[in-house]
Amino acid sequence: MERILIGNLQEKKGETVLVQGWISVRRDQGKMVFFDIRDRSGTVQGVVLPNSGAIETAKEIRSEYVVSVEGKVNERPEKNRNAKVQNGDIELEITGLTILAKAEIPFELGGELNLDTYLDHLPFTLRAEKQKAIFKVQAEIIKAYRAFLGGQGFIEFQSPKLIGDDAEGSGEVFEVKYLYDKIAHLATSPQLYKQIMVGVFERVFTTGNVYRAEKHSTTRHVSEYTSMDAEFGFIKDHTDIMALETEMLRAVCGHLTALCKTEFELMRADIPTIPERIPAIKLREAQELIFKETKKDIRKEPDLEPEDERWMCEWSKREHNSDFIFITHYPVSKRPFYAYEDENDLGYTKSFDLLFRGIEITTGGQRRHNYENLVAGAKGKGLNPDNFSFYLQAFKSGMPPHGGWGIGLERLTAKMLGLSNVKEATLFPRDINRIDTLLSTDQKE
Amino acid sequence: MERILIGNLQEKKGETVLVQGWISVRRDQGKMVFFDIRDRSGTVQGVVLPNSGAIETAKEIRSEYVVSVEGKVNERPEKNRNAKVQNGDIELEITGLTILAKAEIPFELGGELNLDTYLDHLPFTLRAEKQKAIFKVQAEIIKAYRAFLGGQGFIEFQSPKLIGDDAEGSGEVFEVKYLYDKIAHLATSPQLYKQIMVGVFERVFTTGNVYRAEKHSTTRHVSEYTSMDAEFGFIKDHTDIMALETEMLRAVCGHLTALCKTEFELMRADIPTIPERIPAIKLREAQELIFKETKKDIRKEPDLEPEDERWMCEWSKREHNSDFIFITHYPVSKRPFYAYEDENDLGYTKSFDLLFRGIEITTGGQRRHNYENLVAGAKGKGLNPDNFSFYLQAFKSGMPPHGGWGIGLERLTAKMLGLSNVKEATLFPRDINRIDTLLSTDQKE
Repeated sequence: MERILIGNLQEKKGETVLVQGWISVRRDQGKMVFFDIRDRSGTVQGVVLPNSGAIETAKEIRSEYVVSVEGKVNERPEKNRNAKVQNGDIELEITGLTILAKAEIPFELGGELNLDTYLDHLPFTLRAEKQKAIFKVQAEIIKAYRAFLGGQGFIEFQSPKLIGDDAEGSGEVFEVKYLYDKIAHLATSPQLYKQIMVGVFERVFTTGNVYRAEKHSTTRHVSEYTSMDAEFGFIKDHTDIMALETEMLRAVCGHLTALCKTEFELMRADIPTIPERIPAIKLREAQELIFKETKKDIRKEPDLEPEDERWMCEWSKREHNSDFIFITHYPVSKRPFYAYEDENDLGYTKSFDLLFRGIEITTGGQRRHNYENLVAGAKGKGLNPDNFSFYLQAFKSGMPPHGGWGIGLERLTAKMLGLSNVKEATLFPRDINRIDTLLSTDQKE
Repeated sequence: MERILIGNLQEKKGETVLVQGWISVRRDQGKMVFFDIRDRSGTVQGVVLPNSGAIETAKEIRSEYVVSVEGKVNERPEKNRNAKVQNGDIELEITGLTILAKAEIPFELGGELNLDTYLDHLPFTLRAEKQKAIFKVQAEIIKAYRAFLGGQGFIEFQSPKLIGDDAEGSGEVFEVKYLYDKIAHLATSPQLYKQIMVGVFERVFTTGNVYRAEKHSTTRHVSEYTSMDAEFGFIKDHTDIMALETEMLRAVCGHLTALCKTEFELMRADIPTIPERIPAIKLREAQELIFKETKKDIRKEPDLEPEDERWMCEWSKREHNSDFIFITHYPVSKRPFYAYEDENDLGYTKSFDLLFRGIEITTGGQRRHNYENLVAGAKGKGLNPDNFSFYLQAFKSGMPPHGGWGIGLERLTAKMLGLSNVKEATLFPRDINRIDTLLSTDQKE
């Protein structure tokens, strides 16, 4: 007999079928045995009657056993139906039962766990409904993101992560022992490569891991995360980029509304609505606003602190009914050498951060496209342009006005779903204490 | 005026339009100036007449200058039409011309280059039509791959690349200096994680970089490449995996036929046709065949050499009209500890390689899903199961019969397009001599 997915059982009422999956719960009732079986498409209740040939095997079965069952799809009596759950009106009367694999689990799934217990047991704890919802939503975010950009003429490329010198000197870069004892590094972003690729395809994006050697443990940082980067040419200025990101977010949220309603309900989270225009405010204006309203004076700072980002998001929600807000015009001193200085607001760049529900999820902006101007930018930061000679070839070869964004996938997922720690939205998070298992104590902070 | 893409000019005959792009070729004819302008959608010829206000600027222009032009879309006189090229029946009579960026290129694009010259100048040389075709095809391969697997109920996940111990002891692994001087490594494949994820979503795939510290320079290897990995549960045996890969390849080739005809024509390459069933032969049978037909005796070897792979592909083409051939049943000794030993052919695994046009592009197979059996597999290789305790949790928690594949995207792209070196199908290839620029000579092999 051919296996049928549990999600398709409704079409098989009265028929005998073959189902394969995991046992979620076993309940003994007198001489009968009930259990829930789940596969990738859903869950159904199975019942083994006392006179069934499967009853002895049924009594052996425990949670997470993998089974192959033959059974008849029966409609449940009216009084036993449960409209709230999938397949709540049917059950599988099991006539044949084979154990494909046994299991011995550390605890039952579904309870509240502290973060370390959850992470220590990921190969098991990821099987909980909540975790599956999170990473299903994450997969759909990327899918919608790619579909949107593809429709806008963007081509995806594979950006290298192994780089030579840490030319930008970010100080948060991991060293790799390369071949013949040469030192390489892990890229903190695909920035230089995506700019090069604008010269090739004009509109490009790349999604892949980036690496930050963050020496502190926070709810916002992991050592390895997924950056959704895009970059495109022939822009007027940074507002073109902000407009396209707004449109992209609208497309992603539309996709999630269509496909992930169950997951958002399970997580008790709301899919954000994207306003026609996401509010945008210069950093200095935001600082003035915070000073005026809270008396906190950060007007001389080059950036917002986490607390300020939260305040600005609350303000945006209150005043503009928007979960998002763009902060623009960060000072030249705070942005990388390739950031474009605003001709009409010297000392400030045509750059932006996008804040969402209290946290920065995007950094973006227009870039310097003129070779001499770019070299001057590097020198202005005390960097040696010779270290960028490979990258600079793109600019020697003619580059249009361009810019783009980098979006942290895990942060976006976390905020979409109301998770307080980005590690909950990172499948296998790496931080100062952990690469899968806890690192030995002598090197913890 | 709003910018129009060159690919849409056919709809604008007789109208004045704004076009932005790169100059591909400039030709002066008497007092007139001609040039080709290209953007992401195509190329068109522009002409600047002697009495045009743009003539002075036109004379300044060189290859790869980035320009913004206003002009009228004229139909060319019958005798000047060229049906073989895009927009060969129209030209743009330029009335306004602005230089957005100047360029100074090392040589003209389009000529034959040796590999090092090509790689030294990638930010420029990637702009050639041939290179754009290669990476357009590569992007479409991944797109079709994802769409096919999505349609089969597979979920994409983000696999970590930073791993702790090199538990498999492959010896080809890069070391990373992790936080607080702890040593981490770069994953040589997402194998262990995709198996864990089968326990979560049943059918999963991941596409991302993997790393091999290959200490020799060949036409088949790079240090960093893209692996298209898939893994799924509830299989009968390895033949289910081979069947799904065959179907996937058919879907990918169908997609390429629909969308990349121009690129394959430009590369003078044929999109392979996928037979109803790709020929499959046990390694031992292949070795017997080679011995019988060529007298080369490799019957005691655990694997095929590149030369043998080429011979088998020629045989498959000749005997079965197939560009592909599966080689199955590699010995337990040659495969990793998680490879599933065939109960009916002890000492050999339910594993396969897929060869395509002379080279291995896939390694796959069924995996051990039983905890005790898997631990025995590790011990049989002299590995310490304690080093795999995180991974082994998945098997303690119940795993179905499962297996999958890993496909090298760059090798697949290279062979699809008839490229002799995988580096030509790797956007920014890393090898013993090069990370973007040549590594200093003291550390070359």
